[in-house]
Amino acid sequence: MRNIALIVSYDGTAYRGFQTQPGGGTVQDELERAIRSLTGEENRIEGSGRTDAGVHALGQVVSFRTASPIPIVKWALALNGRLPGDIIVRSAHEMPEDFHARYSAVRKTYRYSLSTGKYPNIFTARFRHHHYRPLDVDAMREGIRFFIGEHDYTAFSSAGAPRKSNVRTIYAAWLEHEGEDLHLHWTGSGFLYNMVRIMAGTLIEVGEGKKAPGHIPAILQRKDRNMAGPTAPAQGLALWQVEYPPPYGALLAHDPAAEIERPK
Amino acid sequence: MRNIALIVSYDGTAYRGFQTQPGGGTVQDELERAIRSLTGEENRIEGSGRTDAGVHALGQVVSFRTASPIPIVKWALALNGRLPGDIIVRSAHEMPEDFHARYSAVRKTYRYSLSTGKYPNIFTARFRHHHYRPLDVDAMREGIRFFIGEHDYTAFSSAGAPRKSNVRTIYAAWLEHEGEDLHLHWTGSGFLYNMVRIMAGTLIEVGEGKKAPGHIPAILQRKDRNMAGPTAPAQGLALWQVEYPPPYGALLAHDPAAEIERPK
Repeated sequence: MRNIALIVSYDGTAYRGFQTQPGGGTVQDELERAIRSLTGEENRIEGSGRTDAGVHALGQVVSFRTASPIPIVKWALALNGRLPGDIIVRSAHEMPEDFHARYSAVRKTYRYSLSTGKYPNIFTARFRHHHYRPLDVDAMREGIRFFIGEHDYTAFSSAGAPRKSNVRTIYAAWLEHEGEDLHLHWTGSGFLYNMVRIMAGTLIEVGEGKKAPGHIPAILQRKDRNMAGPTAPAQGLALWQVEYPPPYGALLAHDPAAEIERPK
Repeated sequence: MRNIALIVSYDGTAYRGFQTQPGGGTVQDELERAIRSLTGEENRIEGSGRTDAGVHALGQVVSFRTASPIPIVKWALALNGRLPGDIIVRSAHEMPEDFHARYSAVRKTYRYSLSTGKYPNIFTARFRHHHYRPLDVDAMREGIRFFIGEHDYTAFSSAGAPRKSNVRTIYAAWLEHEGEDLHLHWTGSGFLYNMVRIMAGTLIEVGEGKKAPGHIPAILQRKDRNMAGPTAPAQGLALWQVEYPPPYGALLAHDPAAEIERPK
């Protein structure tokens, strides 16, 4: 059996999330429908991780097994012809037998985007949480750095299935300020349920002056969800990039649109 | 009666164009519904001009008369609460009695946007014509300059109601190249039916090497629609900005999102 990986973008506005569920309406349902229509098989895909209802992706990675002989260069175009316009397969890659979109992933980057104009910008509104009150960007820039490192992120996660550990590592976290837009980025080993949206909601409170940026270490240490800010709306969140170690990383060809400029 | 002007953005994807028509589904219908719900009157609005089905706007200007006593600072927020999310009133302005969104306008700017990556970018796809083959950007940049000036644009218009004159003036025309995106801009005294989309379609042929950039003056001179390129798809087009002479221009407060940087 071949093992194929796809890099997939989607506008999550119309979907009930990435992962398949009873009643359908998920990104996974659409992708599986398209793949099955191409192969005639009962393929199931694995994503690098779930995204919630309304959350977007630039570079989600999925993988699946197939006996189809279709050459690898044909897959993206053939699938895009079978997908709705708000899901785009950016590239397809032939992977080693042991590659798994989820288990092989080592780093993920999420972007949380805010628009801070008086009214939303029509060209980006689907991908921004609109915050019409002014925000103290310098305080947010100071605050986001406190998330970097190995921490127990219990305070920044929603209750859910119990896990062995809530310790994760954030390798990089930075704020990009572009006109009326603010983009918050986090690159980490993995993220707990709602973790990015709660970190974003906390930084919004920092920007509103409701919390001091230097208060974030204390919230981490106390592991108390009630000390963190609210869960920011799904609409502003996008899974930006998933990274894999050698040899997989090099096989997932460079995607210029997913290129990230991390600050020095 | 008060004379109120609104600056309006819309994502035209879901609409049958700006101007009201039997069966509804237009931007004007939605705006009038929202205004009437606020005033309790039978208001009719005038737009600076029509936009076709699927065409977007950053800074469309509309005006209407009302006896409503609602303070001018309240209109934008109150209307946005009554409008679908893909139409946004950016600002409202109290105008002199003789101001008319269409007749008072002196310059309009349109933007035609192409994405030239192998696949569309999910974050901008609604507002781009996707052209997946490479384009010669330098040739297009050379070609767009030939549209500047006072010309008879018959070759760049679709057949329609006969007009007194097909002479228009284009004050500025320029190309902006941003990663995989190309934006073509035209600022002019007015535009004939489909003129921007035919100029864009012609420049796409220039970018494909099917036409030489220096061929554009001959097309203008011959006034033959068949010599120009095809009408480019509506999806890439946006009415960007409408300009008014004194005293109106200054009354329509500066809209930073509609700011245009014209090349020197």
